[in-house]
Amino acid sequence: MALTGVLRPGHAQIRVLDLEESVKWYTDVMGLQYQGRDKQGRAYFKTRAERDHNSVILRQADQAGMDFFGFKVLDKATLDDLEKKLQAYGVATERMPAGDLLETGERVRFKIPTGHTIELYADKADVGSACGTTNPDMDVIDQPGIIPIRLDHCLIYGDDLEGALDLFTKVLGFTLVERVKLEDGKTDLAVWLTCSAKAHDIAIVRHGEKDKLHHVSFQLGSWEQVLRAADIMSKNRVSIDIGPTRHGITNGTTIYFFEPSGNRLETFSGGYDHYPDMKPITWTWDEVGAGIFYHDRKLNDAFLSVVT
Amino acid sequence: MALTGVLRPGHAQIRVLDLEESVKWYTDVMGLQYQGRDKQGRAYFKTRAERDHNSVILRQADQAGMDFFGFKVLDKATLDDLEKKLQAYGVATERMPAGDLLETGERVRFKIPTGHTIELYADKADVGSACGTTNPDMDVIDQPGIIPIRLDHCLIYGDDLEGALDLFTKVLGFTLVERVKLEDGKTDLAVWLTCSAKAHDIAIVRHGEKDKLHHVSFQLGSWEQVLRAADIMSKNRVSIDIGPTRHGITNGTTIYFFEPSGNRLETFSGGYDHYPDMKPITWTWDEVGAGIFYHDRKLNDAFLSVVT
Amino acid sequence: MALTGVLRPGHAQIRVLDLEESVKWYTDVMGLQYQGRDKQGRAYFKTRAERDHNSVILRQADQAGMDFFGFKVLDKATLDDLEKKLQAYGVATERMPAGDLLETGERVRFKIPTGHTIELYADKADVGSACGTTNPDMDVIDQPGIIPIRLDHCLIYGDDLEGALDLFTKVLGFTLVERVKLEDGKTDLAVWLTCSAKAHDIAIVRHGEKDKLHHVSFQLGSWEQVLRAADIMSKNRVSIDIGPTRHGITNGTTIYFFEPSGNRLETFSGGYDHYPDMKPITWTWDEVGAGIFYHDRKLNDAFLSVVT
Amino acid sequence: MALTGVLRPGHAQIRVLDLEESVKWYTDVMGLQYQGRDKQGRAYFKTRAERDHNSVILRQADQAGMDFFGFKVLDKATLDDLEKKLQAYGVATERMPAGDLLETGERVRFKIPTGHTIELYADKADVGSACGTTNPDMDVIDQPGIIPIRLDHCLIYGDDLEGALDLFTKVLGFTLVERVKLEDGKTDLAVWLTCSAKAHDIAIVRHGEKDKLHHVSFQLGSWEQVLRAADIMSKNRVSIDIGPTRHGITNGTTIYFFEPSGNRLETFSGGYDHYPDMKPITWTWDEVGAGIFYHDRKLNDAFLSVVT
Repeated sequence: MALTGVLRPGHAQIRVLDLEESVKWYTDVMGLQYQGRDKQGRAYFKTRAERDHNSVILRQADQAGMDFFGFKVLDKATLDDLEKKLQAYGVATERMPAGDLLETGERVRFKIPTGHTIELYADKADVGSACGTTNPDMDVIDQPGIIPIRLDHCLIYGDDLEGALDLFTKVLGFTLVERVKLEDGKTDLAVWLTCSAKAHDIAIVRHGEKDKLHHVSFQLGSWEQVLRAADIMSKNRVSIDIGPTRHGITNGTTIYFFEPSGNRLETFSGGYDHYPDMKPITWTWDEVGAGIFYHDRKLNDAFLSVVT
Repeated sequence: MALTGVLRPGHAQIRVLDLEESVKWYTDVMGLQYQGRDKQGRAYFKTRAERDHNSVILRQADQAGMDFFGFKVLDKATLDDLEKKLQAYGVATERMPAGDLLETGERVRFKIPTGHTIELYADKADVGSACGTTNPDMDVIDQPGIIPIRLDHCLIYGDDLEGALDLFTKVLGFTLVERVKLEDGKTDLAVWLTCSAKAHDIAIVRHGEKDKLHHVSFQLGSWEQVLRAADIMSKNRVSIDIGPTRHGITNGTTIYFFEPSGNRLETFSGGYDHYPDMKPITWTWDEVGAGIFYHDRKLNDAFLSVVT
Repeated sequence: MALTGVLRPGHAQIRVLDLEESVKWYTDVMGLQYQGRDKQGRAYFKTRAERDHNSVILRQADQAGMDFFGFKVLDKATLDDLEKKLQAYGVATERMPAGDLLETGERVRFKIPTGHTIELYADKADVGSACGTTNPDMDVIDQPGIIPIRLDHCLIYGDDLEGALDLFTKVLGFTLVERVKLEDGKTDLAVWLTCSAKAHDIAIVRHGEKDKLHHVSFQLGSWEQVLRAADIMSKNRVSIDIGPTRHGITNGTTIYFFEPSGNRLETFSGGYDHYPDMKPITWTWDEVGAGIFYHDRKLNDAFLSVVT
Repeated sequence: MALTGVLRPGHAQIRVLDLEESVKWYTDVMGLQYQGRDKQGRAYFKTRAERDHNSVILRQADQAGMDFFGFKVLDKATLDDLEKKLQAYGVATERMPAGDLLETGERVRFKIPTGHTIELYADKADVGSACGTTNPDMDVIDQPGIIPIRLDHCLIYGDDLEGALDLFTKVLGFTLVERVKLEDGKTDLAVWLTCSAKAHDIAIVRHGEKDKLHHVSFQLGSWEQVLRAADIMSKNRVSIDIGPTRHGITNGTTIYFFEPSGNRLETFSGGYDHYPDMKPITWTWDEVGAGIFYHDRKLNDAFLSVVT
């Protein structure tokens, strides 16, 4: 097949400080569909358009952040193959049993050099989108909440950016789409990577600490939906970090905002297609502001400092 | 790599009745960039956003239509490998020499069972987009013409749909995204296929004759850009077949219209992502109208009859 | 005051064949707010954004059509003054008592030369918009239905267009915004009139019969909301006459469609501002198609023939 | 007529520090049409859509700011009448001769209690929009620059807000649309006024100094055009104060930015209709942030301090 190996971001497990409040918020404000809880008490969600059973898992904890981020792979043979490649590369892997996450098959779990836990899995129950697969009507926005299309990507902060970049590109088949250079013109401050033809499926920023989350991102259908999302945030007194604005990197339009536990989320729209035959785009240190926030052409304080 | 094999539609060679007039029209109305001519007199174009040297090639001829449609593959090894697989499948292939198309490497050419000529190639000169790959500014719409983002896909009409579907999925690694069934509920009237995660990279409709073109399609950035395209068409007295409207199939918003030689083109925006782990969507015969034109829920006469 | 006299379209009484079905349809599909019934059984609606108690009144009848169209005037003194001017002009007027329409004051009713019944009134209870007048939040689209902003205008068909034009401009202070000429280049086929700075508050097309309705129109906030409306129509199997498309006249984007009794409604967005110091725009007979439907540049059969 | 008296904002004379540079900037970045210079060296501009000869006049000066803001009135009789009413109210008026501003008739000039110079005039040469008044095609965006639709309104800062409010509403027929109250719940911090049915034709903020300009505002056609404007600003390294974002007051979407001399301009889209029968909207002191910048729900430092 033309698209094989790692297909797409599939799930993110997010730590929240008050699970009841968070279930309500992710339902009412984000407009996600609540899919139930498991024995550990974790709460599961999907978007209306997603077909697989869940994409967002909330876990009650004392500290906000992201436990792990999972990618769906083509099939079980691919899962076995990638596990072998990870081990051959020197990465320790762990098999999480089928059913540990609701309606989800076995997962191969491992740590990347930035300290984050990444998972691969081949199976998650296809419970169907809001429209089904026979003569589907359009899914018109007709209820409260932001109602994103999909869990799209995450941006993580960690120390060994080179190590993570090497693993994602050499072992997992990701392509480098954009990069920001430090003042020396050589070292990467940040990289954007894709496993498909999207502008990004994961992004990594160099940071003093390991295993930090900058944001988990959800796709919207248009710049006007970005505006609607901002209006909903204001109505619900959600703290907006920045936006609506545009990223120079990826060209996407965006809002960064904080959910009740302080985790930063993003709702974005747009972004170009990137194929593996294309050269990556490079941003130099003096233009990093325009790369991150194209209209202001400067970073806000929070971008480099606030993580969970 | 996660995206390998056949990457994307790369070029379409379109037959036009008056090359001078057509060069002017594709420049002024479509807003494509003229890239020059070859020794045979063929005229080359790309969009502002495309990086490779050309995507649309116009050839003067007595009859409108499409000579061939080409897909870019990952690299030369992939090209060789796919050629062998095509031959093993029983398809005769021909090597078109590098340079036969301007700034384009060797192409593997073959006929599919619907009679269309398809090409694969690994190399086309990267001449860069309007924005470049270092600290790129946004490419703002600031000149006449529709200015599409990219050559996106084509829809072809031919007789042996099953044969073409088999070849695209089994040999070239495409995935079936949507299908329309005939009254018997079994036979396909039409299929939409992707080699990436787009809703379609090529589509095929069953038809009495071989080797017919329904339309070549170009992507726009938003529904508002679709409106701008329709306004430009009207200002330039372009014959619109239908639109602006929405397809049920792919969910894309669209205009079908005719260039000066009578070839149908499409400018569209949107459409969902499709991954190879997802079930195809099926449209039954009684709902084919809504599948093709979601708002009218019926086919216009031209859809099934006018081809070049 | 700068804006005085006739302020705006305020209410339309529409005849429907099945009131129960229609109440459900205007609620669920149009997304209007049901405001109750009066003793005669008429059903009342307003939009979420409108502040006055009602703008659409449905009356059960054997034949579809519009009973009357009402304009709100600045105050009671204006109402008295305009009644006198109408009488001085030779128009018979009738006072409909306060409360005849729910929450509505006295109305001055009269027939215009095209046979239509027009009303003026100064008072309708201000029940408030969905947002109120203190620290209002944005009214985000968050429920089923098209949810227009306001009753915007109507287009009526009748015989004595010159007579109606004279009355609206000379007595009621309307301004001619656009006109379409017949083949003789002199006679008006149609006129668009405003009492404010909108592109139209009422429009009139010359027609063999008196007192016919072409459409009642509702404003939407954007071209993307026009698309959402078309999607909702398709989901609800509403018969679309034409659209989404654009009018050359007014520049508005539009959908014409039929409610269950066969009355044509419009949802539109945009349109320029017109002030009384500006010359009217004229469309010649050969370009009337582009004036009405800018993209197709031709009239569809229904435009001139289907009225209620 | 229904719309009489003061019709609309017609021209603003802005002081710039370097006229040559400013002419280039208002042409290339704002996308205004240069209309020539007068004997005093002032440079004139209009938008593509405006019909009157000029709306923006630039004057070279040592200090940025706005010399005067002019409103067009219905006709000469209205001009005479309003002059008499101003004088009767106690305002000294001055007649500026016809031709003092290019292609502009006599102007009645006076100072309002906040120290600003306001003008009324009845005549300015109708040079026509880009589309004309016979069978006009749509004016599609097809060249560099922001290309606003019209000069829309201004926001001025001054001390005697009550005095200005009284003059605009009692003498000039403006309507109060929205107001922001100070902490005492009684005193107005700011008022938004209309002479038509727009959300604002002028706005006034209470301030320690007289005769200050906060911004001159230009209308755009959509939220997507606001995004295009922001992209153009970034490409041209224009300093953006805030935006794209939304105002709670008026509901308009907006960007505030600075032209080369430091005058703040606005490009905005949207905003509701307001009629003189409607109650004004009131914002209390604790919600003023949401009123001004709806998404952030707080004022940025510049809003209350940076004026010219």
